Amino acid sequence: MRVGIIGATGYGGAELLRLLNHHPHVTDVVLYSSSKEGMNIHETYPHLATIYEKSLKALTIESLTEEVDAVFLATPPGVSAEWSKAILQSNCQVIDLSGDLRLNSRKTYSEWYKREAAAEDLIEEAVYGLTEWNREQISKAKLIANPGCYPTATLLGLAPLVKEGLVDLHSIIVDAKSGTSGAGRSASMMTHYSEMNENFKIYQINQHKHVPEIEQQLREWDRNVDTVTFQPHLVPMVRGIMATMYMTAKREMSEKELREMYKAAYAHEPFVRIRPEGQFPATKEVYGSNFCDIGLTYDARTGRITVVSVIDNVVKGAAGQAIQNFNVMNGFEEGMALMNVPMYP
Amino acid sequence: MRVGIIGATGYGGAELLRLLNHHPHVTDVVLYSSSKEGMNIHETYPHLATIYEKSLKALTIESLTEEVDAVFLATPPGVSAEWSKAILQSNCQVIDLSGDLRLNSRKTYSEWYKREAAAEDLIEEAVYGLTEWNREQISKAKLIANPGCYPTATLLGLAPLVKEGLVDLHSIIVDAKSGTSGAGRSASMMTHYSEMNENFKIYQINQHKHVPEIEQQLREWDRNVDTVTFQPHLVPMVRGIMATMYMTAKREMSEKELREMYKAAYAHEPFVRIRPEGQFPATKEVYGSNFCDIGLTYDARTGRITVVSVIDNVVKGAAGQAIQNFNVMNGFEEGMALMNVPMYP
Amino acid sequence: MRVGIIGATGYGGAELLRLLNHHPHVTDVVLYSSSKEGMNIHETYPHLATIYEKSLKALTIESLTEEVDAVFLATPPGVSAEWSKAILQSNCQVIDLSGDLRLNSRKTYSEWYKREAAAEDLIEEAVYGLTEWNREQISKAKLIANPGCYPTATLLGLAPLVKEGLVDLHSIIVDAKSGTSGAGRSASMMTHYSEMNENFKIYQINQHKHVPEIEQQLREWDRNVDTVTFQPHLVPMVRGIMATMYMTAKREMSEKELREMYKAAYAHEPFVRIRPEGQFPATKEVYGSNFCDIGLTYDARTGRITVVSVIDNVVKGAAGQAIQNFNVMNGFEEGMALMNVPMYP
Amino acid sequence: MRVGIIGATGYGGAELLRLLNHHPHVTDVVLYSSSKEGMNIHETYPHLATIYEKSLKALTIESLTEEVDAVFLATPPGVSAEWSKAILQSNCQVIDLSGDLRLNSRKTYSEWYKREAAAEDLIEEAVYGLTEWNREQISKAKLIANPGCYPTATLLGLAPLVKEGLVDLHSIIVDAKSGTSGAGRSASMMTHYSEMNENFKIYQINQHKHVPEIEQQLREWDRNVDTVTFQPHLVPMVRGIMATMYMTAKREMSEKELREMYKAAYAHEPFVRIRPEGQFPATKEVYGSNFCDIGLTYDARTGRITVVSVIDNVVKGAAGQAIQNFNVMNGFEEGMALMNVPMYP
Repeated sequence: MRVGIIGATGYGGAELLRLLNHHPHVTDVVLYSSSKEGMNIHETYPHLATIYEKSLKALTIESLTEEVDAVFLATPPGVSAEWSKAILQSNCQVIDLSGDLRLNSRKTYSEWYKREAAAEDLIEEAVYGLTEWNREQISKAKLIANPGCYPTATLLGLAPLVKEGLVDLHSIIVDAKSGTSGAGRSASMMTHYSEMNENFKIYQINQHKHVPEIEQQLREWDRNVDTVTFQPHLVPMVRGIMATMYMTAKREMSEKELREMYKAAYAHEPFVRIRPEGQFPATKEVYGSNFCDIGLTYDARTGRITVVSVIDNVVKGAAGQAIQNFNVMNGFEEGMALMNVPMYP
Repeated sequence: MRVGIIGATGYGGAELLRLLNHHPHVTDVVLYSSSKEGMNIHETYPHLATIYEKSLKALTIESLTEEVDAVFLATPPGVSAEWSKAILQSNCQVIDLSGDLRLNSRKTYSEWYKREAAAEDLIEEAVYGLTEWNREQISKAKLIANPGCYPTATLLGLAPLVKEGLVDLHSIIVDAKSGTSGAGRSASMMTHYSEMNENFKIYQINQHKHVPEIEQQLREWDRNVDTVTFQPHLVPMVRGIMATMYMTAKREMSEKELREMYKAAYAHEPFVRIRPEGQFPATKEVYGSNFCDIGLTYDARTGRITVVSVIDNVVKGAAGQAIQNFNVMNGFEEGMALMNVPMYP
Repeated sequence: MRVGIIGATGYGGAELLRLLNHHPHVTDVVLYSSSKEGMNIHETYPHLATIYEKSLKALTIESLTEEVDAVFLATPPGVSAEWSKAILQSNCQVIDLSGDLRLNSRKTYSEWYKREAAAEDLIEEAVYGLTEWNREQISKAKLIANPGCYPTATLLGLAPLVKEGLVDLHSIIVDAKSGTSGAGRSASMMTHYSEMNENFKIYQINQHKHVPEIEQQLREWDRNVDTVTFQPHLVPMVRGIMATMYMTAKREMSEKELREMYKAAYAHEPFVRIRPEGQFPATKEVYGSNFCDIGLTYDARTGRITVVSVIDNVVKGAAGQAIQNFNVMNGFEEGMALMNVPMYP
Repeated sequence: MRVGIIGATGYGGAELLRLLNHHPHVTDVVLYSSSKEGMNIHETYPHLATIYEKSLKALTIESLTEEVDAVFLATPPGVSAEWSKAILQSNCQVIDLSGDLRLNSRKTYSEWYKREAAAEDLIEEAVYGLTEWNREQISKAKLIANPGCYPTATLLGLAPLVKEGLVDLHSIIVDAKSGTSGAGRSASMMTHYSEMNENFKIYQINQHKHVPEIEQQLREWDRNVDTVTFQPHLVPMVRGIMATMYMTAKREMSEKELREMYKAAYAHEPFVRIRPEGQFPATKEVYGSNFCDIGLTYDARTGRITVVSVIDNVVKGAAGQAIQNFNVMNGFEEGMALMNVPMYP
């Protein structure tokens, strides 16, 4: 298959290139960029020299139709809403890494994203690409709304408990921490090295766009899920997300019971690893890989459950999960191009 | 006054030296160390060369009595329990930076610290040194149990809300993040650079020694406070603590009301700064200083309050607050040796 | 004295504020900014809240004349060249932290800075503010060209050897490493966190503006000094410079002889510390302080001397040395506001 | 082929596991450890869970002979000297990542390593595994002395110039910078996070074990090479080495000429990339990959050449080059298991 990447000069695009280089069924990768048309990709990413020496093309529907069979949109808000319909009509698969098509409610979208939502029919066609829990639908889809980085870590960590009805649905609090790569490649004061090293920040308190995405999916699993408190923080590191999640248990339970439930839920999932008792994951233990590692515990003293979920935000939280969905859509083995071992140290 | 530092080669000791260098009423500092007796302090801390060129002495009660008027214990668990009584009897003030004397209940101490508690009378004599809320007692004390780093950030952040009775006392969750200096100077796998950089970790889940300290003080303010969930994390940075605290509000409130309440509570406190609406503190903004900066918000959507409190764990969370207490005990101006501006960037 | 800071919102300006806060003879600090007039300084620097709560003023010569007795220019290239003459005429001392007035040759300036040099008479009036070696002239000056960060570390490290004529003057190579704060507060791709953490870069090879500054001063000490090779590198840290300097010795010598020579040269200097045999300085050992720490060795095997010099680029490399010069100009004790202990860890 | 790793719990061992996981001709990997026999590898390296779930075995020659066809020694000094002969006799290939067998002169070894050298015949049998320049010999070898991390970066950077006779052989100076992973997994004060972050250090001045290794190989290329000055530094990052190398050119040359010479020298090398004019490599641009990227320039002003060479010390500087040699020894395609794209950011 020939695949295209729109927004190839961002971090999502670069990571797609890193991973797709090893995909046995991808014969060609075409790079599109609106801002850097004509530039060779290794000029902006010297690490790709001798591996990808190709020019960035301007995007037109005509060229796209001729050149590629599937396209990854690693683009800012608005691009997918504008282009996806035409691309689909040209019979090309679309995996959208932006947030444009994730929310079912156009009203909710415009409240949180502060911009107009995509067209209703486009939103309806889009399948939410949380691979582990939506595989069936993804396998038949032409258009994927690839999950956000925080929602991926959060939802994989909460799914078994919410689906089993074991927690107070009014009690969910998510304290999330991310490396800076999630903020993209554009330089800003927020992620300026001198302002970020030896520093730990909280940001977008009560206002992060990923809140409605998390709530929407949780309510798919149990419609009684209440509002969720979610606060994101910025860690002085480049890659990695940890979501620490707090819930009140509906009843007493043993650690073992809790763990077995998670192990059962993810028994056949190659990319979700449940940690043994007393062990909790650190972000580096999934560095560069498509894994989501989960640790959990029930505290009899407080009656609360704490779930800790870590991912590499650029892989499982973006490019990796996108390729995982691409594999499912096309009937390829799900782990293709994704089996790399975490880089440690 | 002549002051002694026991445990001068640890980070707490080094920070006391940094700050006390500018104290107008401290005429002499004597350094004690059990492990490095005879060594000159600048051999283990070259940054102190030409500033402190003095040998570490072995500790004996006799020498202590002759040499100093007040002593800071920056020591591992057990040292204070063993030595404080004798030191007090020699008519010397004691500010204990260890956790030995913080918990009123010997039983609770042994449960969380996994060792026997100090003698009952010693614990009773010790005054908990959370300066902003215990100034009166501290001013009359001879023996201070200096608060832990996490409790300092947490308690200063929670005090007004708990005292005013505005939150559900069963709902308190503290997600805390610290730099590595809190783990001390001894090398370990946990804080090995190659294992810690580009990494974010959670540790001592449900088991951190600071949990009972936090609960004890909260119950001083309102005896109905329930168990608190507290999870500490390790950030790839050296200095700084952020405590992100979650509570359910008992009733609706405006942001303004909440903020005014905090501003009133800390109106006369030189080291507590309440951030204006929409602004939350980052750890670097108190780097190297004795400030505790607090941001807060009420989310009408979820009915929850989020309070964010940051300190420099080595200053306000240890050596700085110890000197603050030393000043109060001796009737000095409270900010003496502590007025340094945060170092930024 | 009343002092003004022009360019108060940059890192140099912020550091001047941090240090001047403790200066006993500075009664008032007035902040000027062309880009952020009217803003309160703590809005852009929340760490200064409650310490400096003052508005940034637009700069006019009239107001300056009335308001201040001395002014620090922490400004981009060109500002000093434009304003210094008028400020001097209003009888106000000027300490210029920019590079505008450091080079005696206007031609050399324009070659390296790629812009026109300041007026000849202004350059002539400016005294190069390498305090330790130019104290006499500084004490009589009205206008100081404060040295660059790299030249400060380099020149203090090379001075004794060059002045004593012990090294081959054709053999000097300086491999310099700096934290990111030297690049200023403006966000850029170069210092974007995601591009800089876990990364080590070389930049401006053979072209750094500090090369002619280093050569000019070395030739003041020995006019036979040849061109110097100087390559700067960017370290994933915020503060600190290390200059590793290589020279061929003219004759064999003992380590002891070399060290004694340096100790003698800096015997009366409070801010230069020579390390004992076998010990070399790390940048953190001068963090936040005005020290320059120097380690050195002669290798009989190769016949080469290696000198290692470290400073905090924001203090001794900028704001600290500027205040040191300000003190000398006004007959104050040289260490006023500069005696803070390095922050470690 | 079945391969064994001795010292599997160190960083070199872990990286071999990461890379070998994708080697098409490696059917089995057996892990040996003297200190952690019986432990499952994922207990000490949770990142390997579900990928490598195998126990560490004690090493005996009998088991080795039966179990593996080739063995990687990722061990401390002395192990290879002790075991290699027996392993070879069991007809097993040996790739030794330690420094035991790199130096031809036993006397030089004991001078720099401060321990007795391996047996003469073992040293003679060992082939120095700098793949790009020793491929022929490696292809026939049974025993490889895999190059040190610093020598790899340095020698690849110097080879063309020294072989072409273009530089003054008395003038070579190497200023090298490394991340902390080169110091191994054992916790120490030197690499303690609180002592290393926001810090830049120089170490083992004039005494690093890699000096004689560099000089020996350079003299293979030109026996007139004089002693080399080499100073290593420690950067606050985990992975990456940059060697900045300084030499006096024998004659004037153009940048273009210099670059073309390097391009020609490495024209057929998949893992050496020469940067275009004006571009110099940063360590992150080879992160996690087997590349060595080289930038270079001639400065007409000083008559000196500066060469900048970067590698990932754990890959090209250790495990990657070891596998590259393993491939050459066995007639496999040289890039097998090594074609991963650098991870950026």
